[in-house]
Amino acid sequence: MNPATAPTTQEKTMDAVVLERRHEIQVRPVPAPAQVGPDEVRIAVHTVGICGSDVHYYTHGRIGPYVVEDPMVLGHEASGTVLEVGANVTHLAVGDRVCMEPGLPNPRSRAARLGMYNVDPDVRFWATPPVDGCLQPEVVHPADFTYELPDELSLEEGALIEPFAVAVHAVTKARISPGDVVAVVGAGTIGVLTAIAATASGASRVYISDVAPEKFAKLRAYPTVHPVDARERDLAEVVREATGGWGADVVFEASGNSRAFGSLWETPAPGGAVVLVGIPVEPVSLDVAAAQAREVRVETVFRYANAYPRAIELAASPSVDLAELISATYPFEQAVAAFERGAEARPGDVKIQIRVAGR
Amino acid sequence: MNPATAPTTQEKTMDAVVLERRHEIQVRPVPAPAQVGPDEVRIAVHTVGICGSDVHYYTHGRIGPYVVEDPMVLGHEASGTVLEVGANVTHLAVGDRVCMEPGLPNPRSRAARLGMYNVDPDVRFWATPPVDGCLQPEVVHPADFTYELPDELSLEEGALIEPFAVAVHAVTKARISPGDVVAVVGAGTIGVLTAIAATASGASRVYISDVAPEKFAKLRAYPTVHPVDARERDLAEVVREATGGWGADVVFEASGNSRAFGSLWETPAPGGAVVLVGIPVEPVSLDVAAAQAREVRVETVFRYANAYPRAIELAASPSVDLAELISATYPFEQAVAAFERGAEARPGDVKIQIRVAGR
Amino acid sequence: MNPATAPTTQEKTMDAVVLERRHEIQVRPVPAPAQVGPDEVRIAVHTVGICGSDVHYYTHGRIGPYVVEDPMVLGHEASGTVLEVGANVTHLAVGDRVCMEPGLPNPRSRAARLGMYNVDPDVRFWATPPVDGCLQPEVVHPADFTYELPDELSLEEGALIEPFAVAVHAVTKARISPGDVVAVVGAGTIGVLTAIAATASGASRVYISDVAPEKFAKLRAYPTVHPVDARERDLAEVVREATGGWGADVVFEASGNSRAFGSLWETPAPGGAVVLVGIPVEPVSLDVAAAQAREVRVETVFRYANAYPRAIELAASPSVDLAELISATYPFEQAVAAFERGAEARPGDVKIQIRVAGR
Amino acid sequence: MNPATAPTTQEKTMDAVVLERRHEIQVRPVPAPAQVGPDEVRIAVHTVGICGSDVHYYTHGRIGPYVVEDPMVLGHEASGTVLEVGANVTHLAVGDRVCMEPGLPNPRSRAARLGMYNVDPDVRFWATPPVDGCLQPEVVHPADFTYELPDELSLEEGALIEPFAVAVHAVTKARISPGDVVAVVGAGTIGVLTAIAATASGASRVYISDVAPEKFAKLRAYPTVHPVDARERDLAEVVREATGGWGADVVFEASGNSRAFGSLWETPAPGGAVVLVGIPVEPVSLDVAAAQAREVRVETVFRYANAYPRAIELAASPSVDLAELISATYPFEQAVAAFERGAEARPGDVKIQIRVAGR
Repeated sequence: MNPATAPTTQEKTMDAVVLERRHEIQVRPVPAPAQVGPDEVRIAVHTVGICGSDVHYYTHGRIGPYVVEDPMVLGHEASGTVLEVGANVTHLAVGDRVCMEPGLPNPRSRAARLGMYNVDPDVRFWATPPVDGCLQPEVVHPADFTYELPDELSLEEGALIEPFAVAVHAVTKARISPGDVVAVVGAGTIGVLTAIAATASGASRVYISDVAPEKFAKLRAYPTVHPVDARERDLAEVVREATGGWGADVVFEASGNSRAFGSLWETPAPGGAVVLVGIPVEPVSLDVAAAQAREVRVETVFRYANAYPRAIELAASPSVDLAELISATYPFEQAVAAFERGAEARPGDVKIQIRVAGR
Repeated sequence: MNPATAPTTQEKTMDAVVLERRHEIQVRPVPAPAQVGPDEVRIAVHTVGICGSDVHYYTHGRIGPYVVEDPMVLGHEASGTVLEVGANVTHLAVGDRVCMEPGLPNPRSRAARLGMYNVDPDVRFWATPPVDGCLQPEVVHPADFTYELPDELSLEEGALIEPFAVAVHAVTKARISPGDVVAVVGAGTIGVLTAIAATASGASRVYISDVAPEKFAKLRAYPTVHPVDARERDLAEVVREATGGWGADVVFEASGNSRAFGSLWETPAPGGAVVLVGIPVEPVSLDVAAAQAREVRVETVFRYANAYPRAIELAASPSVDLAELISATYPFEQAVAAFERGAEARPGDVKIQIRVAGR
Repeated sequence: MNPATAPTTQEKTMDAVVLERRHEIQVRPVPAPAQVGPDEVRIAVHTVGICGSDVHYYTHGRIGPYVVEDPMVLGHEASGTVLEVGANVTHLAVGDRVCMEPGLPNPRSRAARLGMYNVDPDVRFWATPPVDGCLQPEVVHPADFTYELPDELSLEEGALIEPFAVAVHAVTKARISPGDVVAVVGAGTIGVLTAIAATASGASRVYISDVAPEKFAKLRAYPTVHPVDARERDLAEVVREATGGWGADVVFEASGNSRAFGSLWETPAPGGAVVLVGIPVEPVSLDVAAAQAREVRVETVFRYANAYPRAIELAASPSVDLAELISATYPFEQAVAAFERGAEARPGDVKIQIRVAGR
Repeated sequence: MNPATAPTTQEKTMDAVVLERRHEIQVRPVPAPAQVGPDEVRIAVHTVGICGSDVHYYTHGRIGPYVVEDPMVLGHEASGTVLEVGANVTHLAVGDRVCMEPGLPNPRSRAARLGMYNVDPDVRFWATPPVDGCLQPEVVHPADFTYELPDELSLEEGALIEPFAVAVHAVTKARISPGDVVAVVGAGTIGVLTAIAATASGASRVYISDVAPEKFAKLRAYPTVHPVDARERDLAEVVREATGGWGADVVFEASGNSRAFGSLWETPAPGGAVVLVGIPVEPVSLDVAAAQAREVRVETVFRYANAYPRAIELAASPSVDLAELISATYPFEQAVAAFERGAEARPGDVKIQIRVAGR
């Protein structure tokens, strides 16, 4: 068990959603967070979204090299309200509605100094073994990685900023130019958010494919996003047809499915880009000659860096509506049911959230 | 007089809007366009917008080194319908609704080969002395520089693609990232179009300043565009306040007014960009130390290259409504009145158009 | 047989090195080139290098979709002397020493207009079926694609500009920053030229690996290029060791060998780039997770665009010595022997050339 | 007087080169540095170069907003040997030869998190009021900003890394492509170092202008660097002539002289860049129309970020020889004489250094 997760009789405790081991989640006491340091804030957690990675730890007990060996608090997509601020904190005040960036780098690492703190190998990320997550009533967090929510965003939407930041980071690295035609492979949460972020960032048309058409339902509000039923049509072919044979300016791979890489390299236009967002379990197929014939640029992304301010700005603008993506909200006490729903992977579900506060 | 503008008794003629000399415009016969070559199309001109440059030739007889020495047909912001296609043309057919890119480079020039055909000094541009414009019932144009309008765009909007391409090119070179905060100096036609293009390209907020608040009227449909009355507030100050002192990620100078350069270099954020779109008559003031303190990047733009397809895609998307910008439409016969209205420079006017077809 | 390769009794002819079919090369008469057009030059060919693709057509009769179905003149790496210039040509004069860019795009194609004429599918490229090459005493070529050699370069070096342009284009797209650590996989002609171009373009150290150590001999003049015997050490491991575990800023894959892709994705540094120059016959393995962990950017290159002027400038500078790379020179009459030597693929051979002129 | 510069009777002291006030330098005792913290190192200073800014504080008592109000230790271009390492330091050991980056940002500032720590307004920079410099026998410095010198570099060259980092940062932001033609305005220390860095980073030719031809002497070892006597020829004109009228791909302004901006905007090629390195005292003239006609990109630089590793790598490579630039070396006791020599500004002087160690 992580030291932080191990309650002792003397300590103050609070209930948390703890993955005890693969297939077993409990809501039970863990030690309450430590005192607030001078650069930190204490936050009443309001809403936490369930990410595919949380579910994967629940169902598989590991993701690649990250293995759940001790009980671990789950959850990393969170919003809340500031309860207390450290002595040095100036940009936040008690009562502020906030969302929290869950990965904390060493700011003096070589990667961080270059502005790429996300690829610092020493990042500590909520609910990534052995680091505990935030599915509990209160957390203490560095003020630097805590962001005020503008009035336009609810706390529920605030808890969606984390996955939206993944999409915004992918779209930022894609360097979409105004009027670009975009293709997205996969309409899971990240695929859908990427389609929305791309639309809000200058894409004139987005073609998004999936084998489960239920997933397209949440995109109806975006008339320039065109669903492609991957069981019937190949995305590369649809894009070619829609662009007079030219191809997509930017292609996002958001499925992580190795089969998607078959025609992937035929989808971009000459000089276009492929952005790899999904994480396939095994190495996939790269058709070098097809990519070279178009001089395709490939960008790979890992979570995000410096994306929260952008994601919040964009989410608050009228071109984005994140609230629409919340499929269901469970009270804190029913966290296990929420994870079971997540594990079901219903085709129409985009985001399941847990309401922590107000119990 | 340009050879093309000089009618002979034998030739077929058609009426055109001819700038005879400074302060004198006539609608009178000019030679009809030549035969359609194999890579060309003949087009029935439908609508032509009046550009500030057209008005400037009318009122001043010159723009910088370009002097009106002979009568010249005016107009370069045009849409129309294809009447005839050359033997090699495959992407257009008779009856297609189109808009026309008015600048024709030498495709084999060094600049063109590098993809920057707009800075080829040999570009021939409609209504730039000594090249005639398109304010006449028919033109013959290279098919390569003639673009089909999608169903979403009217012919009136098609005639707005030319100035919109200026804005889209500026926004493309700015390399706006999703969620950027943007400032625009000047709310003339290009400033307004730039604010709209930036909004559609990922800007979360746009602060636009002008001394004439009437100019902001057309931007009411864009809730994230915030007008700044330059008589009352300094744009740099407004932006600083709105960004916690950080500054704008991208600043577009679209006024061409040398006074705007006073606080211009204090407006961008660290690592931000200033894009110079307006063309001041004289050299302006560059505060190198202020720019360096932010490591500002400055981009300069000259018309556009490869921007028409992007501009058309973006104009057809729901995030852009160009029709709203048309302040008045004059019939072809009243072209002189249209130019007089243009010369008035009413603060609330954005775009005056002339309807050529259908007489 | 290509029309151009089919002699008729009436026509003027000249000897050429003709690939009659797989495994059969002859030096025999073909029709002399046509008249010089207004934008063309006639050139006395001096030296032609043998490329791996020439040898491949000789030994296999095809490269991917390009099949030798009719006799074809070989050769595309050429230099020579101008014999005659067309009426419009101003930048070249009779007697000028030149080299020729072998691929001719349609300057009005969409790709060419964007500055990427190399990915125009309609490029006509010397010695790529069904287009004839230049291994003959005279050629007529567009002046635009004919470049004067500076005094610093011999005609033998001039014939090396073509493969050097491949390397320079790869290095340009890599966007090497001053002081970058570079890795090159494969020390064939392109690998060696890439190591040299990278060194001249700001790389502080280059680690180049190959299974044939003879190939490193020509790099001895470059003290910052470090050979890695791939039979003994893994390049990724060597680079990690040499960079304190950080990795290479830029990795060039110049082997085209699918086995090289095993540890390729572990070689770059966080934020680094992999440039795919070699063309593997089959799709290769892409370890997405390894690339994402570093947020690697992948660039793919196809020949080159706008690279000849850069390659000539760089080759003429003291930091580059191309002459050193010429392993053997054969007279025109012994062209068959030259190709046999090429087909031998001796490990120490970098470039075999054929002297056409002066017979 | 800065607290750190005020000796008390109890404290250990050491001699330092102190600017008491404008026009008055003394070598006299100051408090010895504090204990070494866990992330710091103690360094025996070996060599310190005199920068134009040190001289300017001596002769003028201020640079823009930075005013010498209290006595201040001078010097920020330093090398030395590690005497002691803090508990957490792993990349340095006692005895290591090092150079020190003189500006320390707040690693958690917004600018630092973006990778631009140089534009963090809270940077504390040696010998910039009120921060003391390093002209004393020992300093304590963060290990993160202390870099081991490779065997190829002497400690004298190590003390040149600081100004070379300015040049390398400018060249990095310029994004020189292989074979670029470069122009440099001004052959002071930074101009000369920029010419050298550009040459080592892919520039095929560098045209550098100055009104004092003595300054070109140190560039004789670089055959592709061409001096232009600015009293006789205009740099823009020379570049046009040398490039067939095309212009320079990159122009560095390294004079800081407002008169240089007259023809500056005519010097770059279409699509070229102007990099502003010099810091003019007053705003200068920007010819927007001339810059736009070429779509010039302007980059502004402020010191450097993440440039030390690059500068060290490049300085250690055979293409760069920094030792050649040292015009004179003074012993520590003659520091005042060294500053007087600096204030003389002899045209042939590039770098004056003070040897601190070994007295």
